[in-house]
Amino acid sequence: MRRAPNRGGDNEAMVQDCRPLLLTMGDPVGIGPEIVARALQQDAAGVVVVGAVDVMRRAMALLPHPWPVARLDAPADVAHCPPRCLPIWQPEGLVDAGLAALPWGQVDARAGAAAAVCIDAAAREVLQGRACAVVTAPVHKAALAAAGVAFPGHTEMLQAAAGGMPVRMMLANDELRVVLVTIHQSLRSAIDAVTFESVLETLRIVQGSGQGRRIAVAGLNPHAGEDGLFGDEELRIIAPAVAAARADGIDAQGPFAPDTVFMRARRGEFDVVVAMTHDHGLIPVKYLGVEQGVNVTLGLPFVRTSPDHGTAFDIAGRGLADPSSLLAAMAWARRAIRSA
Amino acid sequence: MRRAPNRGGDNEAMVQDCRPLLLTMGDPVGIGPEIVARALQQDAAGVVVVGAVDVMRRAMALLPHPWPVARLDAPADVAHCPPRCLPIWQPEGLVDAGLAALPWGQVDARAGAAAAVCIDAAAREVLQGRACAVVTAPVHKAALAAAGVAFPGHTEMLQAAAGGMPVRMMLANDELRVVLVTIHQSLRSAIDAVTFESVLETLRIVQGSGQGRRIAVAGLNPHAGEDGLFGDEELRIIAPAVAAARADGIDAQGPFAPDTVFMRARRGEFDVVVAMTHDHGLIPVKYLGVEQGVNVTLGLPFVRTSPDHGTAFDIAGRGLADPSSLLAAMAWARRAIRSA
Repeated sequence: MRRAPNRGGDNEAMVQDCRPLLLTMGDPVGIGPEIVARALQQDAAGVVVVGAVDVMRRAMALLPHPWPVARLDAPADVAHCPPRCLPIWQPEGLVDAGLAALPWGQVDARAGAAAAVCIDAAAREVLQGRACAVVTAPVHKAALAAAGVAFPGHTEMLQAAAGGMPVRMMLANDELRVVLVTIHQSLRSAIDAVTFESVLETLRIVQGSGQGRRIAVAGLNPHAGEDGLFGDEELRIIAPAVAAARADGIDAQGPFAPDTVFMRARRGEFDVVVAMTHDHGLIPVKYLGVEQGVNVTLGLPFVRTSPDHGTAFDIAGRGLADPSSLLAAMAWARRAIRSA
Repeated sequence: MRRAPNRGGDNEAMVQDCRPLLLTMGDPVGIGPEIVARALQQDAAGVVVVGAVDVMRRAMALLPHPWPVARLDAPADVAHCPPRCLPIWQPEGLVDAGLAALPWGQVDARAGAAAAVCIDAAAREVLQGRACAVVTAPVHKAALAAAGVAFPGHTEMLQAAAGGMPVRMMLANDELRVVLVTIHQSLRSAIDAVTFESVLETLRIVQGSGQGRRIAVAGLNPHAGEDGLFGDEELRIIAPAVAAARADGIDAQGPFAPDTVFMRARRGEFDVVVAMTHDHGLIPVKYLGVEQGVNVTLGLPFVRTSPDHGTAFDIAGRGLADPSSLLAAMAWARRAIRSA
């Protein structure tokens, strides 16, 4: 990695990546542009918005004290951007005509297409070493589909751009880090997708991501199956995968009863919990409030985070959107780069 | 219900049930007797322990300032029990010989049999109107089975004693009340047990129990199925059951995405959440700590609560057990009686 010169020996805080942090605008008619504008006014250091100039101008106008928008020729030019301006890089191929006139909060193919171009461009920049990380504002599944985008969401688009390696979704806040074996599928099909390979692969990705040494593995069934009485996936699949991971030197433990392992992790017993299903993992992460939750993609060759909420079409364009989760995602990305 | 005379008009706090509150000792070699003894020293008003005299003497001896044990001929005699004594009623048929000499923390058929006799006797007393509620200390499934008890746990024993009506398990703390459609079975079989009838029956039991007017129903699948994209149980089963309940005048709403509905209930949007699976419901209830959690059986013709932990054989007999959850269960039972 390219780093700024280390001016003070071993002080990690002084080792900084001077490349820009890319922040994609998200769906132009959702809350993405607004929370991006709000977040920039609170925390602009080294951040470049990847988006459409007119869309970001419209979003800025929702704020009590709008900033001017400074269009950059390339992300690296952020170093010369004056303060109290929103630095934006509009990628080639982005069709911006009329985007800023689209009605707020309605699925639109043009909006979906513009969001996708920004994600692709950001992925290319970071993969070529011209950015340190990507933080993404929310996109709308239906708008992407309407635009003919072949992927259901960010994670799949970035995964494909990076060559298709296995990735996993991590949701994290200040108290808890949870990595999911299965995500967006029916609970019935998720049970079938809990395999020796998928659990072991998850543990390897967690280990490789440096999210913490002590990994707890939650079971699938009540009481982690109670010795096979309430389901045998723990005995047949999860315990053997944990054993295989341990043989690889991974400090994985479990499977533990799902109903208490997250509480134990919150109290400090584990650094990260691997959950078998979307809701086993996300219920505890979101229970205390979604404002501080961050979505982190593990397994990619670069740092990527996002807020853990969607486009919130119901409040888009009304000046009500809260940038807290996006700010947390930006802070998480910076920490991840410093500790990389 | 029999009540003490109302001495002050409409003041609900003055309407009190003067019948004893029965507290079963649980498995004699688990932490049950110890937490019962500790709880009595903190909150004895109207409480009668249903158990074996020698077992409770051994438990008292674990405490820094043991109380003498006062054996009652019948629960109603608690009114004449002197202060700073542990009032105990030893039911007929309880074989107590040698119980207090059993090693702590080991599954034993005699211990299981004694625990079961106490539960049966308590159920009989409360069903015949000689007690106001039953609070149960933990039993051990394997000990019950070793004793030839035909039921896996308290809930099933009490349900059978009361005539076999449908019941549901509610877990509750100061922030959240969750009622479960399915409990101790594999996740795969739980999905099959989520039917129109089981969801509607749950909603009727919740409504009848007076746990609160605003009932949220959690979905089964991620994002509550996202309009059928991630599973169709919400469309086929849960939404029709919610609609049928509403047609009956029940203020049920949903199905909602499981990962945010508990957070919304915690913030006050709903009084109680109906969860489809054991862990969807118990993960959030237990997330902030199990000390204050209470297990309440809904649907029985009497009030029954218990702590939300087990026999903790690993620390039994060591003077380390925490009575917080049992005290919370006793407080919950008293409140439920007052508001009945």
